[in-house]
Amino acid sequence: MEDVQPLHAEAREQASAHVDQLTKPLGSLGRLEKLAVQLAAITGEPFPVVTPPGILVFAADHGVAAEGVSAYPQEVTAQMVANFAHGGAAINVFGRQIGALLHVVDVGVAVDVEAPGVWTKKVRLGTASMLREWAMSREEAEACVQAGFASAEAVIAEGARLLIVGEMGIGNTTASSAMLAALTKAEPDQLVGRGTGVCDEKWEKKKAVVKEALSLHQPDASDPLDVLAKVGGLEIGAMAGAILAAASHRVPVLLDGFITTVAALLAVRLCPAAGDYLVAGHRSQEPGHTFVLSVLEKEPLVDLELRLGEGSGAAVAFPIVEAATRMLREMATFASAGVSNQ
Amino acid sequence: MEDVQPLHAEAREQASAHVDQLTKPLGSLGRLEKLAVQLAAITGEPFPVVTPPGILVFAADHGVAAEGVSAYPQEVTAQMVANFAHGGAAINVFGRQIGALLHVVDVGVAVDVEAPGVWTKKVRLGTASMLREWAMSREEAEACVQAGFASAEAVIAEGARLLIVGEMGIGNTTASSAMLAALTKAEPDQLVGRGTGVCDEKWEKKKAVVKEALSLHQPDASDPLDVLAKVGGLEIGAMAGAILAAASHRVPVLLDGFITTVAALLAVRLCPAAGDYLVAGHRSQEPGHTFVLSVLEKEPLVDLELRLGEGSGAAVAFPIVEAATRMLREMATFASAGVSNQ
Repeated sequence: MEDVQPLHAEAREQASAHVDQLTKPLGSLGRLEKLAVQLAAITGEPFPVVTPPGILVFAADHGVAAEGVSAYPQEVTAQMVANFAHGGAAINVFGRQIGALLHVVDVGVAVDVEAPGVWTKKVRLGTASMLREWAMSREEAEACVQAGFASAEAVIAEGARLLIVGEMGIGNTTASSAMLAALTKAEPDQLVGRGTGVCDEKWEKKKAVVKEALSLHQPDASDPLDVLAKVGGLEIGAMAGAILAAASHRVPVLLDGFITTVAALLAVRLCPAAGDYLVAGHRSQEPGHTFVLSVLEKEPLVDLELRLGEGSGAAVAFPIVEAATRMLREMATFASAGVSNQ
Repeated sequence: MEDVQPLHAEAREQASAHVDQLTKPLGSLGRLEKLAVQLAAITGEPFPVVTPPGILVFAADHGVAAEGVSAYPQEVTAQMVANFAHGGAAINVFGRQIGALLHVVDVGVAVDVEAPGVWTKKVRLGTASMLREWAMSREEAEACVQAGFASAEAVIAEGARLLIVGEMGIGNTTASSAMLAALTKAEPDQLVGRGTGVCDEKWEKKKAVVKEALSLHQPDASDPLDVLAKVGGLEIGAMAGAILAAASHRVPVLLDGFITTVAALLAVRLCPAAGDYLVAGHRSQEPGHTFVLSVLEKEPLVDLELRLGEGSGAAVAFPIVEAATRMLREMATFASAGVSNQ
């Protein structure tokens, strides 16, 4: 994880100079221009390619779900893994649209999952409830990060030129909120949202659970694996590992919503250089998402009022990233097209 | 133009009921859900299809360009038409990405354009300068609307299931600003922007030109063709006609930036029912765009700080519209996937 390189200054400058030669008023493609230049700096290629994208959906269960913090029962995690395997979930639909290499990785679903094509890298059968004990041991925290790292290396080896990570885990907005509060020392009440859509009563319960768990375990903000072990989630650790693998291979990462972005913060705390490899896909409806994006200093590409997870918002935003790279590669220059410049 | 039908209530209700059965928390796909339901109501199909999209780029010149209101000389219009014909402009790049049926229509470039594949429907060789006389006669105003209407019918006959209209015409933000001020009686100073990026001096000149032209011709806000004839543009009238054709065929229209949206307002003033067939693609940097969107009561899908025109912002936003329709058609339901509902 120490081998994440700095951005590529020469590729960035080449891309930046080329953008200003394209047949359009200077700066008129706005954020697409900045994005194209960032992707050049990330990949080290003045004409970067982001297709095909890879999508890894990490699934795991959360002991804290038993405390009544979600609108859905825990068995939905495994049911949704089966839905992913059969191609019926939102991320499958949007993944097909963008021609993605999509894999589902079971890093800790609480039951045995028998679904075709799912990568099984179970670290344990769901976390323990953070209200009662550590969510996982420190060794398990390391193991789920490693599982994510290896998964990303596999999809990059398969050909992925950009990485989207997504998640499925009933209870995981609770774990993400607790991690974010622990990592940033922010007030949990500002971060805890309604997740899949809990009622007022469960929302209050969720805030109380996060505060109680933080008080019980006192996670150490300067030790990201301590935070992950005490109040985290297996799929969250795995996403952080996948992000680190992408960054170390100079593969850009397109972030999804709240949970993914908390995983990105974890990755950046483990390896600060990884932050430069992140592009924020969308702004979700979860209140903690806007906060964690500001901590990472990222401005999302779209705001479509999504709050689904799975990587779905990133997949919907992906064509904008692709458009930026195609602009760079395919547009004519003033000179090549014989158009008078300003 | 009187045959634009009301939205299809039954298809809307079918789509709306189906969205709530899909394997996702209720409402969690936010604006995609609303968009899918709107597209069902527009097309009359509970499972609407928007691919392939059709893109029509209408090009024409503006006499007002001679008054020094643009950063570019008038010959750039014809040069860019040649660039479109050879596939090198932004709209070509983004159009290829989304698999669009793209055509360039010359409705009034000031010189003969010899470029492969361009549809020639010239109404006149550019408008006159609105500072000196009417931009075009009332008959020419009608003719350019008709030319746009016929062009859209042709691309729909070719198979387009959604329409994007774009434009090229040096000077056309000046004409659009004047039309918008005339149609809404808003203060020109609030609407006139920097277009392709004029300096302060030209920006002041541009505002003065718009005010002087409005004062000279006194266009009648209640007579859209009078506004088009006196201070409009040939490509703007053509886009309005194309929008009316799409609406009359129940084909959704995805709006681009300022100029396109002023054309949409013209279309809606000619036929109010057409407003229901519009989807706003993006919010451009041009100040009048936000105003005209508010008049049309449309909220754009993305804001990427674009100000290029050509239909480029709509093309970049199109995959979001496609995602909404794929969600409806391809996602599993709770029942079909065996997932426990809330």
